[in-house]
Amino acid sequence: MTTVAELLQPVESDLEDLLSNLRVLIGAGHPILQAAAEHLFSAGGKRLRPGIVLLLSRALSPNGELGPRHRRLAEITEMIHTASLVHDDVVDEADTRRGVATVHSRFSHRVAVLAGDFLFAQSSWHLANLDNLEVVKLLSRVIMDLAEGEIRQGLYRFDTGQSLDSYLDKSYRKTASLMANSAKAAGVLSDLPTTELKSLYEFGRLLGLAFQVVDDILDFTADDAQLGKPAASDLASGTLTAPVIYAMEEFPALSGLIEREFNEAGDLEQALALVHQSKGIARSRELAEKFSHEARACLDFLAPSEAKSALLDLPGFVLSRLY
Amino acid sequence: MTTVAELLQPVESDLEDLLSNLRVLIGAGHPILQAAAEHLFSAGGKRLRPGIVLLLSRALSPNGELGPRHRRLAEITEMIHTASLVHDDVVDEADTRRGVATVHSRFSHRVAVLAGDFLFAQSSWHLANLDNLEVVKLLSRVIMDLAEGEIRQGLYRFDTGQSLDSYLDKSYRKTASLMANSAKAAGVLSDLPTTELKSLYEFGRLLGLAFQVVDDILDFTADDAQLGKPAASDLASGTLTAPVIYAMEEFPALSGLIEREFNEAGDLEQALALVHQSKGIARSRELAEKFSHEARACLDFLAPSEAKSALLDLPGFVLSRLY
Repeated sequence: MTTVAELLQPVESDLEDLLSNLRVLIGAGHPILQAAAEHLFSAGGKRLRPGIVLLLSRALSPNGELGPRHRRLAEITEMIHTASLVHDDVVDEADTRRGVATVHSRFSHRVAVLAGDFLFAQSSWHLANLDNLEVVKLLSRVIMDLAEGEIRQGLYRFDTGQSLDSYLDKSYRKTASLMANSAKAAGVLSDLPTTELKSLYEFGRLLGLAFQVVDDILDFTADDAQLGKPAASDLASGTLTAPVIYAMEEFPALSGLIEREFNEAGDLEQALALVHQSKGIARSRELAEKFSHEARACLDFLAPSEAKSALLDLPGFVLSRLY
Repeated sequence: MTTVAELLQPVESDLEDLLSNLRVLIGAGHPILQAAAEHLFSAGGKRLRPGIVLLLSRALSPNGELGPRHRRLAEITEMIHTASLVHDDVVDEADTRRGVATVHSRFSHRVAVLAGDFLFAQSSWHLANLDNLEVVKLLSRVIMDLAEGEIRQGLYRFDTGQSLDSYLDKSYRKTASLMANSAKAAGVLSDLPTTELKSLYEFGRLLGLAFQVVDDILDFTADDAQLGKPAASDLASGTLTAPVIYAMEEFPALSGLIEREFNEAGDLEQALALVHQSKGIARSRELAEKFSHEARACLDFLAPSEAKSALLDLPGFVLSRLY
């Protein structure tokens, strides 16, 4: 199985530059933020989001080179993503993320709120200074989607009336919007025509949805160590994802357990057993496969390059996490 | 003594429209945010910031009318201000603001972080859709200044080495930047020449600094009921403002009390007595008077109008809170 690092190899040194730039941009002059920035940007996250922007930017460049505006766009993408993670961890009261202590548990609520705000503020500022109004609109839409997605996730907790569509809408806002709009923004900075911009947007959207569905399957099939958090923690906290939404169609009893918020002994175990007995996980896998397949097709217009090959491998890589 | 409501009378109905617009924009479709929005936009805050934008916009308009883009700018100004208050209250762990429960104490940390993020996100989005890159830059600078100001306030806590300049720099970021840049942005939307834009910026900057110095004096001279919070709470929490910085020059013993963070019985009372014995409050008042006086002079270029008269009364009004 390929690793993310192998996939992102064509932009490996670009990503290293990006991380050291981000540490300087964020930490400068503020000892506590600097510690938070070290913590955030050294923890060895996957850097998938800026990686996609960098790969696309190289694939779109006639000579394969990367301009300063595309680099800055990748940095902004990672800033926005990191800011939203830091605040989501406060909102969800998560103590760890991928096995690493969250900013608010390592430092405090205070530092986490400030660090997130500072990252959002920096991203807005650098965004404006890309001097491209369309890019500003695309990325400020992302910031709004992230806030709305987190709010909806809270509203839909234990809500068995939600449909697959509302789940996908929430997943778009929380995960796919950033990939879709940053991919399109890379194209805008490369002066692509509208049809190709649409393809880039669709690539990011479909890849993001595949990524989220796979994540939601893994919550049921992987163990604590693989996830870096307790397995089935989504269901336990009332966040209903694709496998559960499909399973509820098959076993209406599951809805009852969820509606009473697993408040009787054995409820959660019984609910988990029903999800595993159902076709929910298999159907979710088919859904992720469909998204991945469609994502690949969006890149047909790109000229062959090392970066394009890596991009074409991404949707398959996302699925490979399931096997 | 004039009230804010009297001063803002020329834009009273504009401000009512703005508030009902904000309630709709923020609350739509999210029951909890709607409750938070009601709480935030009905609490009868002074609305000084959007009021200044609206007065300037009317003063700059040849026929005294207000266009939709100037209205939107005023809304964005209030969104950014409110978002920063909500997050500052989380960071400062304040339970009340002007006697009213804060969002995080009335609802939860979760809702306060989400509501602030949502307001910042909405402001970025509406900002981008004003379709003016210069305005985007001015207001995203404000968002960055607000985050930096709050961080510096935390860093400088109990730091007796700070100068009047670093205090003014922090005050600019926390208070004056929003007034300065939103005033300038109103001018940008009215296509003013550079020298007049600079005057608008200076008007907002000087008014904002006067406002902050007056606030910091009132923390020592007003009582709990007038402030809506315990008097001298800035000093108690280690936030050193103009009166204290001047008083430390006169009475070096004050620095010692601050450096040991008032950890012996009677320290805080003794520190307060030294501030009151010193010329700190009188010198701070002179500083605020100087800023107010200079602010008025920035508006010389405006043609006479009801809105201009109100704007000219603002700096004096800010000072009148001291008497």
